[in-house]
Amino acid sequence: MDRILDDVQRDVLPGLTHWQSPSFFAYFQANASGAGFAGEMLSTGLNVVPFMWKASPVATELEQVVVDWMAGLLGLPELFCFAGGGGGVLHGSTCEAVVCTLAAARDRAISRLGHAAILRMVVYSSDQTHATFQKGARIVGIPPANFRVLHTTAESGYGLSADTVRAAVEEDVARGLVPLYLCATVGTTGLGAIDPVRELGMWLHIDAAYAGSAAICPEFRCHLDGAELADSVSMNPHKWFLTNMDCCCLWVADPTALTSALSTDPEYLKNVGSGGDVSPIDYKDWQIALSRRFRGIKLWVVLRRYGAAGMRNYIRRHVRMAEWFELAVVADERFEVVVPRNFSLVCFRLRLRLGIDDDAVDGLNRQLLAAVNASGRAFMTHFVMDGKFVIRLAVGGAMTEMRHVRDVWELLKEKANELVGAHEGYCMHVEHATHYFRHFWLFI
Amino acid sequence: MDRILDDVQRDVLPGLTHWQSPSFFAYFQANASGAGFAGEMLSTGLNVVPFMWKASPVATELEQVVVDWMAGLLGLPELFCFAGGGGGVLHGSTCEAVVCTLAAARDRAISRLGHAAILRMVVYSSDQTHATFQKGARIVGIPPANFRVLHTTAESGYGLSADTVRAAVEEDVARGLVPLYLCATVGTTGLGAIDPVRELGMWLHIDAAYAGSAAICPEFRCHLDGAELADSVSMNPHKWFLTNMDCCCLWVADPTALTSALSTDPEYLKNVGSGGDVSPIDYKDWQIALSRRFRGIKLWVVLRRYGAAGMRNYIRRHVRMAEWFELAVVADERFEVVVPRNFSLVCFRLRLRLGIDDDAVDGLNRQLLAAVNASGRAFMTHFVMDGKFVIRLAVGGAMTEMRHVRDVWELLKEKANELVGAHEGYCMHVEHATHYFRHFWLFI
Repeated sequence: MDRILDDVQRDVLPGLTHWQSPSFFAYFQANASGAGFAGEMLSTGLNVVPFMWKASPVATELEQVVVDWMAGLLGLPELFCFAGGGGGVLHGSTCEAVVCTLAAARDRAISRLGHAAILRMVVYSSDQTHATFQKGARIVGIPPANFRVLHTTAESGYGLSADTVRAAVEEDVARGLVPLYLCATVGTTGLGAIDPVRELGMWLHIDAAYAGSAAICPEFRCHLDGAELADSVSMNPHKWFLTNMDCCCLWVADPTALTSALSTDPEYLKNVGSGGDVSPIDYKDWQIALSRRFRGIKLWVVLRRYGAAGMRNYIRRHVRMAEWFELAVVADERFEVVVPRNFSLVCFRLRLRLGIDDDAVDGLNRQLLAAVNASGRAFMTHFVMDGKFVIRLAVGGAMTEMRHVRDVWELLKEKANELVGAHEGYCMHVEHATHYFRHFWLFI
Repeated sequence: MDRILDDVQRDVLPGLTHWQSPSFFAYFQANASGAGFAGEMLSTGLNVVPFMWKASPVATELEQVVVDWMAGLLGLPELFCFAGGGGGVLHGSTCEAVVCTLAAARDRAISRLGHAAILRMVVYSSDQTHATFQKGARIVGIPPANFRVLHTTAESGYGLSADTVRAAVEEDVARGLVPLYLCATVGTTGLGAIDPVRELGMWLHIDAAYAGSAAICPEFRCHLDGAELADSVSMNPHKWFLTNMDCCCLWVADPTALTSALSTDPEYLKNVGSGGDVSPIDYKDWQIALSRRFRGIKLWVVLRRYGAAGMRNYIRRHVRMAEWFELAVVADERFEVVVPRNFSLVCFRLRLRLGIDDDAVDGLNRQLLAAVNASGRAFMTHFVMDGKFVIRLAVGGAMTEMRHVRDVWELLKEKANELVGAHEGYCMHVEHATHYFRHFWLFI
């Protein structure tokens, strides 16, 4: 083991991208914590495979308790809890949750309309929803021609409007298609947008992968308004909830819709909990695979160790850091915030001054991001919004403190100065060259 | 943490089914080892998310090295290795591997025939293949009416025959259907059965979930004969290869078939390795989810720690234990081996003597299994084969030694004696009662 660990030191560590660095602000948070690590050690050490209740009763039952706890923390309606006739499960990823709920919705429609209806089924999401959703829809056999990406605008805070949803759905119904499923990313769908979904018996899934963590704070709970109208909700403790990879909560209002699609034996109905009764269930029928790990104990240790108040402080700390950063960006006239801050995610860019053309601005920001990342002192990523190259600061690392956010702001200004100096030097050079050329020509 | 660990001791441990007990012979092996545990600690501690090469280069590259090593250990043809134009990935389960390869096969056919062809696609497996395969086919949208379960017999060692496959496939072609995919469980499909599959351009997947481990021993490598004709192969180190849950190897001959179905962006082709060149790849395009854990380091530590020779000794140890048990069963005339031993899995039952009707034999064996399990001294499970209730001894626990196998044989005989005593006491009682009743009637 010593030689192996030496090799880890020499060959593995230098080849990592350090997700746990307090200055990692890229992609999305992937929290790690002492409690999460301890929970994973217990899970891996015990190495049981709770694919059925009988295969390790405490593993199934602890998972049921923990997903109910999480539902309570997020303020989800009772209908998603086992006692309320619903239930939850721990998956490995949002995509798994999406595939399972898509299969449930699809099979529910197939039982009414026949298998050929799969060619007419349509799925909807906003243009803010991750490509993960379309991948899930493709996996379950929905024709790619039947993916509707609904447009959102800055004016609506990039949320879906009821009009947009209604118009898209009605057009598809008129064409003889079957609107099946709407994937709504929390915080971007207001209550109104859901009405057409409910009327048509479509499946509504709320993807709270990241923002579900914020919802444990009462001041952010409004983002889950309308959840009582959803068929399923998912969020990822392995993102911003101090739970080491992997861990995704999926809650469903009607477990039988899920188990009907995913069960491998007709006896399953015996094991589905009925309202008010925590009956033994077989989690193999709530997920893609047969086998599974004891994920419940990892999330349980995190919740026990840090507690609800501790987790709220944790979330608020990051939100305050992001607020500070956002204000700093706004106060610096060379920069602009491109999208209103989303909890602890700030999307911004270097704008310099009005009059610079868009391509030049994009080019500047690409260089800025490259320069920041090349320094090795922080890591950020970008996305493209309305044709604009936007830099993302995703605050939420378990070890990130205010000073790291202050440092990355200093770093951004430092690199911006270098770039702007070079840029303005170039502009000045072009101006001078043009000036002298003009005089030369006149002279000639 | 002390309070949490006290609760684990008091509330969690007593509620487990102890998969790691050396006397756990149920379901399937789910190995755990010191090296697997250490590897998982490194993975969870570093907590990187290698969904793209760039997101932690060493994680992707180490995984590529490790799956190539495993291919070499199993004696798989070069065409499944990156250097040979193929490649591999670590999934969480066989079902994930099946869903991904089914999606690849389906989309390949769709690109030729159009999406409506999904209604005509047919998938095949032997009746020995786990229900996992049908679940995967259902998830990807193949109509359940198009699942063909091909019959096998004891005479052929429960392997598929070329005639059976050909007949099924030709019948479907005649009906205008599209034979798509055959899932072959290793050791049950001879080379001959694959011909019709190749001729029709069907996808052949070899499921070596359990037996792939045995194939690292030259004497068992013949079970992978024909692999060079397959499109994909999978096996689970988390079953019988000292790698803690979860870890499944999937190898494909043509990675682009996989990435075409699973990629979320059109730029992916840039990252697909071409023959002889280990180009950076983005593993998010080789699996269902976007995010993923650093599984490669866990399997790497296992391979480094135990080595090829060490792993072969490990496999052979279990096979010898199972051989001993099988001989013991054969030598005891009250018992019979029902299916020829499959590596370290022995399927047997209590038969007593000829003349006892089948229902009574089934009832006896149900009681026997219940008595063994109720004793708490061992745990086994059963299955039904040709209408017979069969008890399974799955040898392969990391801590199982010869004495545990001897002990479970003693336990089986002890419980059989009790049952037989009771049974024969009952039979004698019935005989006596019948005898006296007959005399009484005559007397009357």
